Amino acid sequence: MSFYTASATAPVNIATLKYWGKRDKSLNLPTNSSISVTLSQDDLRTLTSVATSDEYKEDILWLNGKPESLTSERTKACLADLRKLRAEMEGTDPSLPQLSKWKLHIVSENNFPTAAGLASSAAGFAALVVAIAKLFKLPQDMSEISKIARKGSGSACRSLFGGYVAWEMGDLENGEDSKAVEVAPVSHWPTMKAAILVVSDDKKDTPSTSGMQTTVATSDLFEHRIKNVVPARFEEMKKSIHDKNFEVFGKLTMQDSNSFHAVCLDSYPPIFYLTDTSKKIIKLVHQLNDAEGKIIAAYTFDAGPNAVIYYEQQNESKVLGLIHKHFSLIPGWDKVDTSKLETVDIAADENIHKGVSKLILTLVGLGPQETSESLISKTGEPLST
Amino acid sequence: MSFYTASATAPVNIATLKYWGKRDKSLNLPTNSSISVTLSQDDLRTLTSVATSDEYKEDILWLNGKPESLTSERTKACLADLRKLRAEMEGTDPSLPQLSKWKLHIVSENNFPTAAGLASSAAGFAALVVAIAKLFKLPQDMSEISKIARKGSGSACRSLFGGYVAWEMGDLENGEDSKAVEVAPVSHWPTMKAAILVVSDDKKDTPSTSGMQTTVATSDLFEHRIKNVVPARFEEMKKSIHDKNFEVFGKLTMQDSNSFHAVCLDSYPPIFYLTDTSKKIIKLVHQLNDAEGKIIAAYTFDAGPNAVIYYEQQNESKVLGLIHKHFSLIPGWDKVDTSKLETVDIAADENIHKGVSKLILTLVGLGPQETSESLISKTGEPLST
Repeated sequence: MSFYTASATAPVNIATLKYWGKRDKSLNLPTNSSISVTLSQDDLRTLTSVATSDEYKEDILWLNGKPESLTSERTKACLADLRKLRAEMEGTDPSLPQLSKWKLHIVSENNFPTAAGLASSAAGFAALVVAIAKLFKLPQDMSEISKIARKGSGSACRSLFGGYVAWEMGDLENGEDSKAVEVAPVSHWPTMKAAILVVSDDKKDTPSTSGMQTTVATSDLFEHRIKNVVPARFEEMKKSIHDKNFEVFGKLTMQDSNSFHAVCLDSYPPIFYLTDTSKKIIKLVHQLNDAEGKIIAAYTFDAGPNAVIYYEQQNESKVLGLIHKHFSLIPGWDKVDTSKLETVDIAADENIHKGVSKLILTLVGLGPQETSESLISKTGEPLST
Repeated sequence: MSFYTASATAPVNIATLKYWGKRDKSLNLPTNSSISVTLSQDDLRTLTSVATSDEYKEDILWLNGKPESLTSERTKACLADLRKLRAEMEGTDPSLPQLSKWKLHIVSENNFPTAAGLASSAAGFAALVVAIAKLFKLPQDMSEISKIARKGSGSACRSLFGGYVAWEMGDLENGEDSKAVEVAPVSHWPTMKAAILVVSDDKKDTPSTSGMQTTVATSDLFEHRIKNVVPARFEEMKKSIHDKNFEVFGKLTMQDSNSFHAVCLDSYPPIFYLTDTSKKIIKLVHQLNDAEGKIIAAYTFDAGPNAVIYYEQQNESKVLGLIHKHFSLIPGWDKVDTSKLETVDIAADENIHKGVSKLILTLVGLGPQETSESLISKTGEPLST
């Protein structure tokens, strides 16, 4: 039996200029360009191992230990694209094994709870596509591969790079120019950190795919956002990253989070992701910045109530001092010597911590990595981890 | 001693097309036209008695039993305008008593709690201006008088009419064309009712005057709202009132409430008026309409978390059936035979009623009324009520 395997890890990314709205649903083509920061894989990553053999009978995925059928159109689109690229190589060089014709076994695990609403599908599709690209020894660069990940989950394309990443919306109908590019690597601005407050929520959020469609179809403010607001902000935010100007970067990040949630609210029926707890966190961040007289912390919220607060290393003592003052009771402080944090005198509702279940402290990180760590046995079954 | 007195009542109005943004702060000139429904004075009204005498030493106001100095610029602007109109009459007819030169005693009371955030300033300024206009026997019509009330509180101008009212923004710099007009009287569409859910809130809301200024100065979506969204909606909503088309009226009302709160959220820092309880009420209304297959209830929220739900008399059993299902424990049901309400099978968080302190059931009502009921004694002191 012929057997080939490869493994890759991919990171989570959290957008600072939000993707909300598709101009083409099946190709996941967005109505606007977006920007994200890639977070460290030490804290948040998906590890995916893939194997192929001429003896496998069907494509199978084991996700976090559970077998799942590969019936989703999005996953099938990714596999088809990757096999097509492999088949082109095989056509040029007939000595290559015909991997494009064999079935795939895929094993994927996150090092964080999927349910927390932390962009796990982005890391998942990025790791899947990169692992298969490695298995197939595809020569395409990450931007090319990002177009395939994009078909799995739009924001997954941004997880193909580390550091600071832009997803250029493109304007071709076939999506060939809608891809991720590096704005700057981690090394350009390595002091960017992120504190994630996982907010408890008693309701099921509107799924982002259907939410986006509702906004595109019904919000009277949406067109203005994508045509007039985002394009200028996209250029300004890239410049703020090149300049390592946190004040500009942070303000744009907060404004764009609010703008995105505003068009959700302007949808019919309205879509709400921010809860009362989210709003209390927003107020705390504004109060901290006001007290400092400059922007040292910037919140952003995806399609859910979790707060991601970006800040620079040199302000960690103040930013975490504020967070510790209000959230000392929640888990996630083990990495920090909290006795050394600054005392920050900003009050909030004394029950604010009850709305938060967990703190994740992380920082800007690298893109996908090939790894020798494998989740798959020589017979193509998941290894227990 | 010469003594003259007059009393008037004025209603609360709740906008269905929202006023948010001033183009001139001291004249209270708005950035967009707005529309409101005037609510019945049986449930919500201000009664104001005014007296004047050549022996009074100073202008005094007793508001809900407490003496207050008349130092606010807005109140002084109203008094100055009314005295100017009176002085013109006195100039033309020297036989008239010189009331324009005498001091005023003013006594004002609401029949509802001021603190509930129920547009009490609109009713208050409307009653003040109408009572003095009556005292001075001014010949101006209500639209003219509305311009004076507008200087007290923008939305007060809409409380000068009953039924369905538009505040035309105007475009003159001096505000002479920024006034309220009747869209339709109560008799045109008398079946419009309103259920007000007074929502408890643990935080102090952003005052609307400063909130508006923040939105005008910082929201990237605001210009689009006032230039492109509201003008079309203004015409469509007037037509829906003329046509008594609740489906169109209700949808526009909900959309405009959401659009207003969206530009608040898009402000920097963001302004939040809707709480988690407000959002749960919004969802209930959408679920009811979905279950009916048409819009029979429409929510709107001012600069605070209270929900005003408009509906037509013929759907009362269903709309109040839903509200009673979830809010039977809160006060305000005494007018209703709740045993006759329909059973509505729409679930919500079982604690939803804990966020609501009171229910007010009312309906569309008349504009300001002159009344023989007086709050002021012959010596110009407040009568105990």
